[in-house]
Order: sequence, then structure tokens, then C-alpha cells
Amino acid sequence: MAHIHLPENLPGMHGLLAFRPAVAPAITALTQALLCTDEGLSRGERELIGAYVSALNDCLICRNVHGAVAQCHLGVDDTFMEKVQADFLQTDLSNKMKALLRIAESVQRGGAMVTPEQIMHAREMGAGDLEIHDTVLITGLFCLFNRYIDGLGIASDDTAETFRARAKRIAEQGYGA
Amino acid sequence: MAHIHLPENLPGMHGLLAFRPAVAPAITALTQALLCTDEGLSRGERELIGAYVSALNDCLICRNVHGAVAQCHLGVDDTFMEKVQADFLQTDLSNKMKALLRIAESVQRGGAMVTPEQIMHAREMGAGDLEIHDTVLITGLFCLFNRYIDGLGIASDDTAETFRARAKRIAEQGYGA
Repeated sequence: MAHIHLPENLPGMHGLLAFRPAVAPAITALTQALLCTDEGLSRGERELIGAYVSALNDCLICRNVHGAVAQCHLGVDDTFMEKVQADFLQTDLSNKMKALLRIAESVQRGGAMVTPEQIMHAREMGAGDLEIHDTVLITGLFCLFNRYIDGLGIASDDTAETFRARAKRIAEQGYGA
Repeated sequence: MAHIHLPENLPGMHGLLAFRPAVAPAITALTQALLCTDEGLSRGERELIGAYVSALNDCLICRNVHGAVAQCHLGVDDTFMEKVQADFLQTDLSNKMKALLRIAESVQRGGAMVTPEQIMHAREMGAGDLEIHDTVLITGLFCLFNRYIDGLGIASDDTAETFRARAKRIAEQGYGA
């Protein structure tokens, strides 16, 4: 049960956004601007970083929704997020994405955990300033989302089916719809 | 030295915002909507939560800037933030604020750390849904800010003087200026 009284029947973050209309448009705009672009990182890569960070933060709702959105964009099968979570080095992700996920792992623990060596390695694997910047900011954004959802005790009665349907809608229409 | 190439001579987050103009307005709008209102929590209380969370995350820039903004709003002296950081239970903050800072401490570690007892205690001390919601979201926002700043290696050549000047400007004009 949520820790505060929220409008009913709105899944995940939607109940929180409906509760706080003075803040909601800015949250939606930030999500849209950062996740719904293919400049530098693709949409699928952005969602993958978000899902992976959510898994590290043990936020099941975000992990499942954004994992499913990543899956839609990347055209991968149902087992892909499990493989990334178990050991992304063993997946066929690009070396650039693997280097960026290492940076995301550090940022999730704390900004100062990022090392110059991790940055240099990401550059060697083809990441530029924009990709490095967006990896850090996406990780920060999911550290916010995960705490927002779990800190207010948001539960989910989503099934694999409804997760998939929401993910498909997000992948097609973005976060503004 | 920052991990990416940023416009020079812009302090703290300003260099990052200038680097990423497609995302910056949404970050500024969220900061403004969540921190520059006295609905429920006052501006000073909001900045205090942010400064305290930044201290927990060891983000010196955010701790110093937002601590100084809180100080401007709350009309407290230079030692106040140190006292809050050392042991806020020993300060003359209201019992409501102390209960909310306990919740912020939990959220900083992870959303699932918040207990029903902490929520109940905050309610008994006079916090309503809005204050509890905003405490969680402000904590999440600073978990983003702190990772964004430190994850990209942003350093500061601010002095106590320049911190104070920036804080005074923020306290008077908000984040949109």
C-alpha cells in the first residue's frame, strides 16, 4: 500500500504525477527530453541504462517497465534483460555500451565512484562527451525515479501482459501522451 | 577537472546545463517547481532537505550552495548546517522537520528503506501527504543532482564568499533567472 493517498487505478508513477500536478509536467518533460531521442545514444540504449540502474536499485516496477521498453526498441527477446542484469559483459552489447554501463554502475553507487580510467575506456570504445553525459544523467534520473516509486511505497498489480502493453505504448508514443 | 568538455567559467551545474540545452529547461523547471514554493514545506525547509541529502551523498558543491540558500531563507547563522549534519535531533528544528529528515535519510539509502513507522511518526508530528511526498521527491532530486555533478567530475573554485552570493541570488530570484 502506498504511504500517501493517491488517485486510484493509475499504475506506477502515474498516480504520483496525478497527485502533484504542479511538478508533474516538469518530470514528464525531463523524461521525454532525456529518454526519447536517438541523438548519441539510441532510445533503446537509454531505456536499457535506466532498466539496468533500476535493477541495481532493486526497483522492480521501473526495471520491468523500462526493461520492456528497451526490449521493444532493441528488438531483443524476453531473456535479454536477465542476461544484462546477470552479467552484461557476456551479452552481445557493443563494447561502447558495456563501457557506459560500467560508468552507470559507478554513478548508481555515488558520483565520486566514477574513475578517469572508466571515462578513458568509454572514449576508447567510441563514446563521446554526449554519450558519457547522458549516461550519467540517465543514471541520476533513475536514482530519482526508483526512490520516488519505492520511497512512497508504490506497488504494482501489473502482469507481464500489462507491463508489455504499457511498454509498447511508451516505445511508440513516448512519455508525453 | 570535469570528465567531459564543458563551456568554461560556469559554476556548478550551470556548465552542464549549457552543455545540454535540449534537457536543461526541464531540469530547471523541475528544480523551480519543487524548491521554489512554500506550499506545505517552506522554501527554506525544501533547501534544507536538499542540503542534508547532499551532505549524506558527500556532494560538497550541492551541500554548500543549497545549505547557504536554506540559511538565507531560514535566517539562521553559519553554524546551522554543521549542526544539522552532525545531529539534527539536537537542533531546534520542528519535530515535523526532524521526522521528515528521518524519511529523507532512508530515501537517500534507497526507497525501500522507508518504514511505515517513519511515515506514521511524521504524520503524528503534523506532516501531511504533501509534505511526505515532497520530502521523498526532493531527496530523489538531490540524489540525481549529486550524481550528475560528481559523476561528471565537476569541481568548484567557489569560496565562502561566492557561495554566499550565488545562494542569495537563488533565494531572491529562484532557479529560472
